[in-house]
Amino acid sequence: MHKKGLLGQLIQSFCCLPGVGPKTAQRMVFQLLQRDRNSAKALAETLLQAIKEIGYCQQCRTLTEYSLCEICADKSRDDSTICIVESPADAWIVDQATAFKGHYFVLHGRLSPLDGIGPDELGLNILEQRLASGNIKELILATNSTVEGEATAYFIGELAAKHHVQASRIAHGVPMGGELEFTDSSTLLHAFNGRRNLDTNVA
Amino acid sequence: MHKKGLLGQLIQSFCCLPGVGPKTAQRMVFQLLQRDRNSAKALAETLLQAIKEIGYCQQCRTLTEYSLCEICADKSRDDSTICIVESPADAWIVDQATAFKGHYFVLHGRLSPLDGIGPDELGLNILEQRLASGNIKELILATNSTVEGEATAYFIGELAAKHHVQASRIAHGVPMGGELEFTDSSTLLHAFNGRRNLDTNVA
Repeated sequence: MHKKGLLGQLIQSFCCLPGVGPKTAQRMVFQLLQRDRNSAKALAETLLQAIKEIGYCQQCRTLTEYSLCEICADKSRDDSTICIVESPADAWIVDQATAFKGHYFVLHGRLSPLDGIGPDELGLNILEQRLASGNIKELILATNSTVEGEATAYFIGELAAKHHVQASRIAHGVPMGGELEFTDSSTLLHAFNGRRNLDTNVA
Repeated sequence: MHKKGLLGQLIQSFCCLPGVGPKTAQRMVFQLLQRDRNSAKALAETLLQAIKEIGYCQQCRTLTEYSLCEICADKSRDDSTICIVESPADAWIVDQATAFKGHYFVLHGRLSPLDGIGPDELGLNILEQRLASGNIKELILATNSTVEGEATAYFIGELAAKHHVQASRIAHGVPMGGELEFTDSSTLLHAFNGRRNLDTNVA
């Protein structure tokens, strides 16, 4: 049908969204054009503005339209604890899920020497300056539990040790609500080795 | 986190898309801003252009940026057969799935007197002019098989009869690949009543 027209072009453009194929794109386009042109206009304009204005925070490297992101600029937050994450989305999710009130540092990737991604590409020189300043008490390493993610956590742990800063790694194990029967063996091994004493009757 | 910032606003804007909640919107926004700013720009610009330029075809009422849509303007198509559908998306889907090479007519809804949707709101006055012109041989009624869709098909069938034009209704029955065991009873009843003679050994 109109494949070559503006409508076809628009459907094509929506296919760049993650998880959106031609069928979903088609449904989105028809919905927007037929029922929701105001929202569509707001979406397009906000997107253009965001592309133009959103860059990276000078301090923590997350996405923001300011030179310092809202978290780094928030004086009420504890700037002596830094949570290290691989992406801005991870920082966002940790902040939504936990009561963590410290700062973040976004690596934008993980160490991968074969791909030319070394410490400087991850901004670890910036992080090291902060560690050297002496104001940091703890680094929480929340990189993913992939091989590269673990290697990156280990590397940053060494960096922290060099500057006499405590480093901790988030716990990996059986997910809450998960059943042992359906847990993969490497997770189960990790959960077993990482077991903790029950505090209840000890003290 | 940045809820109040531009990033939060952008995530909010993406929630207007059908089937997209806050989590998916978040994933889309981070993906676009981090990895795909060029596609994001193209998406926003095409969307703005589409909102401005895409209107309705004068003849068949589908969405198009021209005064006549590509199908209506295509001289190689058979303009004596018109397929009646409820929405531009339906026309698009019929055209993709079938080898139909006639024209379409988009109702943008179905008869619903209680909601104030009568024949004129569905553009049936425009359709009647075309029927009266004497060039139309067949109307294929492809409205949905809801109560209103059936009523609309019946009404248009009467209109066609008045102008001595053949009207046909698309078949409803067990979907291809569907199993009787899992077919709902009203579909099965329809399929039973609408059974056709096998042509093989009859002639």
